[in-house]
Amino acid sequence: MRILGIDPGSAATGYGIVERDGSRVVHVAHGTLRPPRSAPLAERLAWLQRGLAEVLETHRPQAAVVERIFVNASVRSALVLGQARGVALAAAAATGIPVHELAPQHVKQAVVGTGAADKRQVQAMVRRLLGLERAPASDAADALAAAICQAHAGPLAALEPPAGRGARRRDRAAWVVRRAR
Amino acid sequence: MRILGIDPGSAATGYGIVERDGSRVVHVAHGTLRPPRSAPLAERLAWLQRGLAEVLETHRPQAAVVERIFVNASVRSALVLGQARGVALAAAAATGIPVHELAPQHVKQAVVGTGAADKRQVQAMVRRLLGLERAPASDAADALAAAICQAHAGPLAALEPPAGRGARRRDRAAWVVRRAR
Repeated sequence: MRILGIDPGSAATGYGIVERDGSRVVHVAHGTLRPPRSAPLAERLAWLQRGLAEVLETHRPQAAVVERIFVNASVRSALVLGQARGVALAAAAATGIPVHELAPQHVKQAVVGTGAADKRQVQAMVRRLLGLERAPASDAADALAAAICQAHAGPLAALEPPAGRGARRRDRAAWVVRRAR
Repeated sequence: MRILGIDPGSAATGYGIVERDGSRVVHVAHGTLRPPRSAPLAERLAWLQRGLAEVLETHRPQAAVVERIFVNASVRSALVLGQARGVALAAAAATGIPVHELAPQHVKQAVVGTGAADKRQVQAMVRRLLGLERAPASDAADALAAAICQAHAGPLAALEPPAGRGARRRDRAAWVVRRAR
């Protein structure tokens, strides 16, 4: 099971691909897509769409995951972020794979052990979990963290009844953290 | 010169295509894209991307125009609208055509004669300007209004110095209104 995590942003969009191999989660690739800053908005978004289509074509993930956006942003930044996020969601879904959404706090809770983890903690934990030589850049680390979280979620989610969503999330988070230590 | 106007929305995205033929603006096509409401967000956005790609492929416009979004929306609605808007901007720019952005007030000022025009006034004026048998649905009317506005903007914009943007906008609006009467 190969999973693509995407952390969309107007200036930089991080992506990360992991593969679940039995009980292990293995690093496949990660990177950051930075549309040319001088280009008009629509061209930057088309550039992002092409970049993500290339990533999807190259790595052929079976599922994608995009973090939900914090709603305590300003209206202006919600709009700008929404535009990049819409392109990312559409690019992934256009290949026919399921696209999951996870709350950032949930991803941090699962990967670092606290929903209030800062960027450096996420980078350090992603590096450790995937055995990388160096910590990925922040956007790519967030994308990898979401992909790791989703990679662990699959089999557990299937075992539990669809009714207890809150309970399932807590269990899943605890389980991922246990595995990580 | 064939121009595609897009009015993106999470539930419905209107589009309208007009052609400038000398001093006349002629109706080509319009419609509303409504992704299946029951589908997950990412699939609805991919559906919108495909729908717009089909419209672009069928009508081959030489430019596109998308209205700027009012920033007095809520954070939540700015995010949701931003997602559809990002897909629309990227879909148009992906075909290599220039994608313009116009303020809704500017479009209303130019087409109806007042920036405070309501939806019905826009629908009625678009119907009259294009000689349509019936008024287009609201989303499509907004898209056609933007396309009409952009169709008139081209040659005028080329005559004026790039410095006086405010002045150019006012002149252009007055000019379009004159033509409309």
